[in-house]
Amino acid sequence: MNNQRIVLVSRPVAEPSTANFRLEEVPLEALADGHVRIKNHYLSLDPYMRGRMSDAKNYAVPQAPNETMIGGTVGEVVESKNPKIAVGALVVGMGGWQQYSTATGNGDIRVVDTKQVPLSAYLGTVGMPGMTAWYGLMKLCEPKAGETVCVDAASGAVGSVVGQLAKLHGCRAVGIAGGADKCAYVVNELGFDACIDYKAHRDVASFDAALKAAAPAGIDCHFENVGGMIMDGVLNNMNAFGRVAMCGMISGYSGVPIPLTNPSVILRSRLKVQGFIVSEHMQFWPDGLAVLGGLVGSGKLKFRESIADGLASAPQAFLDLLIGKNFGKQLVKLA
Amino acid sequence: MNNQRIVLVSRPVAEPSTANFRLEEVPLEALADGHVRIKNHYLSLDPYMRGRMSDAKNYAVPQAPNETMIGGTVGEVVESKNPKIAVGALVVGMGGWQQYSTATGNGDIRVVDTKQVPLSAYLGTVGMPGMTAWYGLMKLCEPKAGETVCVDAASGAVGSVVGQLAKLHGCRAVGIAGGADKCAYVVNELGFDACIDYKAHRDVASFDAALKAAAPAGIDCHFENVGGMIMDGVLNNMNAFGRVAMCGMISGYSGVPIPLTNPSVILRSRLKVQGFIVSEHMQFWPDGLAVLGGLVGSGKLKFRESIADGLASAPQAFLDLLIGKNFGKQLVKLA
Repeated sequence: MNNQRIVLVSRPVAEPSTANFRLEEVPLEALADGHVRIKNHYLSLDPYMRGRMSDAKNYAVPQAPNETMIGGTVGEVVESKNPKIAVGALVVGMGGWQQYSTATGNGDIRVVDTKQVPLSAYLGTVGMPGMTAWYGLMKLCEPKAGETVCVDAASGAVGSVVGQLAKLHGCRAVGIAGGADKCAYVVNELGFDACIDYKAHRDVASFDAALKAAAPAGIDCHFENVGGMIMDGVLNNMNAFGRVAMCGMISGYSGVPIPLTNPSVILRSRLKVQGFIVSEHMQFWPDGLAVLGGLVGSGKLKFRESIADGLASAPQAFLDLLIGKNFGKQLVKLA
Repeated sequence: MNNQRIVLVSRPVAEPSTANFRLEEVPLEALADGHVRIKNHYLSLDPYMRGRMSDAKNYAVPQAPNETMIGGTVGEVVESKNPKIAVGALVVGMGGWQQYSTATGNGDIRVVDTKQVPLSAYLGTVGMPGMTAWYGLMKLCEPKAGETVCVDAASGAVGSVVGQLAKLHGCRAVGIAGGADKCAYVVNELGFDACIDYKAHRDVASFDAALKAAAPAGIDCHFENVGGMIMDGVLNNMNAFGRVAMCGMISGYSGVPIPLTNPSVILRSRLKVQGFIVSEHMQFWPDGLAVLGGLVGSGKLKFRESIADGLASAPQAFLDLLIGKNFGKQLVKLA
């Protein structure tokens, strides 16, 4: 039996393209003792993968060329040589961009329960993106009831959770998203107090005015996924002693770095700006995932998915994600 | 009897000049009940004053035009209608750019002891600049023994204390200063492990190489007084989980803001960058000043002063301070 997988064939110089990837078919190897084989149902596409495609100094090991692209997956155990994990178990792990993956079951996969939470949500709201939102907001921003929390990429897998958690903590939630449809979803479905369509505010003055209207008492906490002009504008509207969780800078992932126009605002407003990677804070995951799973199960935390069909569609879906064409958590349906 | 004072006559558009100031002579008013009159011996000149000259959104109230320029002073009580403060007491306070000032004695001045610490040091190492260094380093950077601490404007009133405190805490101290003489002082007199003369490294690659040589294990803590290219270079050489205390951005105080070239390094290296103003953390002053006074008294904390002679010299001395012409703490001798 064969396995289909996608490997990185070349590192992008600026914008990545589908030519950086290759879909290939390889024979399934025999399963080693103690291991399990997983048929992956969904692959998660996430902005961090862009960083791994580069070999510039980074916080993670670069993706090796001609190896299966890394990525989070959920699937079903179809063969087991590990007595602790039965065939039929549903698991979440880092299976990569492929139909079948193997795992030791020794910390590299987690068996999940789909009674309250749909399987795919373990790649989103009850998975790494949800934990990213939970950790950055609760542990770095530490919002207090009555404060204003801002988040960009607000309709996405991370941003949607940030704003909903902020609301659940008694804060005003202001989203920033690209397009009227995303903004309508953020306000009407997710319950944010306001959402700014940055595509309708291309110049600094217009975006600034929109921020002031959406956050009349100023911004106390900001969860940064985008960078560039959005970050410039938000920082200028932050209140004294504001906290910024820096999670992503997707606007600068391809090509030259985008500067921060006026870093002295960090001093002037006595801000704390802190970068983080949620996988370095695993001690918080059990608590955080329990909270997130409970909120999804009880319907208090909503989410939306963009599902590309079939492994072959992954490269284009990933490129679309980098420019915000997705709407909600981007997945690829594999089986 | 008359008082000489310097007032702000106009707000600078870009670089300030002596034309923004006016020296004037005004009659001394009668002393109010409960107040004391102080003959100021030294006036402190500090970069923060540049911000007060502007009326742009700032963390402090702008300096009012045609009023005495604000500033820290040390002096002697020459007239007292406050039974708690005797004539002859030596005090530190915010007397402003003038020969005589008054105070209520109700929290606006502090009587100091010159047995162990010279009077002028209460404007520097055992005053606001020293506390700025102590708070930013100890409370925001929280250096651990064996880590590398970097500070720019290293021969100045704040930077000199940062590096010496870092050494006392078992860290490697790397200074950045403008000129070979300042760097020699920082290493030979203050005991830093290394000092980079940024004027000898004008381009990014050269400055980066100098940082790598001075901090071969990378930088864990940075105390930022300058901004611009120096901050860019240091951030790129910080270790994961580094801490940056943002105290000043003197390179951008006059004219257009200087951008941070690559803010994504905050994410990549999971940095914490935090702005602060020491006067908002008064609860730490008694402890901090006790430590600093003890270290000065025992000779473990060295300092240097640049002393301009006479009130009339204050405007030019202040302009020189903004471009780094001073060497050590900049004072004006008034009496």
